Amino acid sequence: MTITITAFDRSPDGGKGLARDTRVRWALEEAGLPYAVRLVSFRAMKEPAHLALHPFGQIPTYEEGDLVLFETGAIVLHIAQRHGGLLPADANARARAIAWMFAAVNSVEPPILEFFNAKVVERDKPWAAERLPLVADRVRDRLRQLSARLGDADWLDGDFSAGDLMMASVLLRTRPSGILDEFPSLAAYVARGEARPAYRRAFAAQLAINAPG
Amino acid sequence: MTITITAFDRSPDGGKGLARDTRVRWALEEAGLPYAVRLVSFRAMKEPAHLALHPFGQIPTYEEGDLVLFETGAIVLHIAQRHGGLLPADANARARAIAWMFAAVNSVEPPILEFFNAKVVERDKPWAAERLPLVADRVRDRLRQLSARLGDADWLDGDFSAGDLMMASVLLRTRPSGILDEFPSLAAYVARGEARPAYRRAFAAQLAINAPG
Repeated sequence: MTITITAFDRSPDGGKGLARDTRVRWALEEAGLPYAVRLVSFRAMKEPAHLALHPFGQIPTYEEGDLVLFETGAIVLHIAQRHGGLLPADANARARAIAWMFAAVNSVEPPILEFFNAKVVERDKPWAAERLPLVADRVRDRLRQLSARLGDADWLDGDFSAGDLMMASVLLRTRPSGILDEFPSLAAYVARGEARPAYRRAFAAQLAINAPG
Repeated sequence: MTITITAFDRSPDGGKGLARDTRVRWALEEAGLPYAVRLVSFRAMKEPAHLALHPFGQIPTYEEGDLVLFETGAIVLHIAQRHGGLLPADANARARAIAWMFAAVNSVEPPILEFFNAKVVERDKPWAAERLPLVADRVRDRLRQLSARLGDADWLDGDFSAGDLMMASVLLRTRPSGILDEFPSLAAYVARGEARPAYRRAFAAQLAINAPG
């Protein structure tokens, strides 16, 4: 059954892996699944045809036969539950890997999204300069806790899992600000993710869309 | 096997269902599972014994034999995958219900958390009054999209599922600000959740801890 995902026709980051389709591409590559990509413009994302697939008007979406999914966490989990390589076989270890997926999107990503709003969306507001360090510290608080839990392990709980895929993808978003590199063990953790052949294929495929002709 | 969760010994909301253990209690009640509760103080949450259970020093946690979980989404999903009543049997419908769980915590909750930071954490900052409406509008944007998708349906996708449980729990957090009631169909959706016997038992159990002696 053909899998089709959506991605930005022009990614705001120029295809550097920060757009959310990277997570889904990475999971598909880890699972060895071929997929098609349909590119959508910012305008098309807010139109009824796309909103029928994604109620919040974003990318990526995931279509596989009759199934339509949105939310990267749900898409990655769907792939991981049906194919090998992304979740451990042991039931408890599997539940813990899924907990790290939720931790990535519900504990670590929210302060990162708030930082993005402070830095980009509110950049011309009179409070922008004074407020930004405060919001950056909220990101640091989370990364400090995550770094303490990771310790000197390679991955968050045993072997690489969909939990690490989601967490590394979320952490990547803290690199442009320099915050990621304040936590060397987390920077190395993300680099381990990026070194995986599946990630490299996902990254290359995304970059190819956005590379200057 | 005994299930033990943690909850605030004194909930900041006085036990009105806004603390995150409500979601887990609700899921346990829907599944008909007995559980024990260990209350933790704000100080104890940041100490090593609790951090070993929850790397971000929050409640709730979930213990079941050798399994320790954190993240409400992961705990609710764990309960839903092992017991009846919270996920549809059809594989595609199940994947879509899980997508709504992720939508609750990754698309709807982040602006609500940002609103909380703006209203409470930054209340004494010079920008507080001018900035709050801006952040409230981010919450409204999401609720408008969600309301459009819900339409006049009772639940987000077919029968009540863990996706509705998570979404209603997250939306509850917008009621104190008055924003929820600006969206009558979402207010009614939350009220349908609250009317479920399982929710009422969960709410009563949480309130009992916090009720004045």
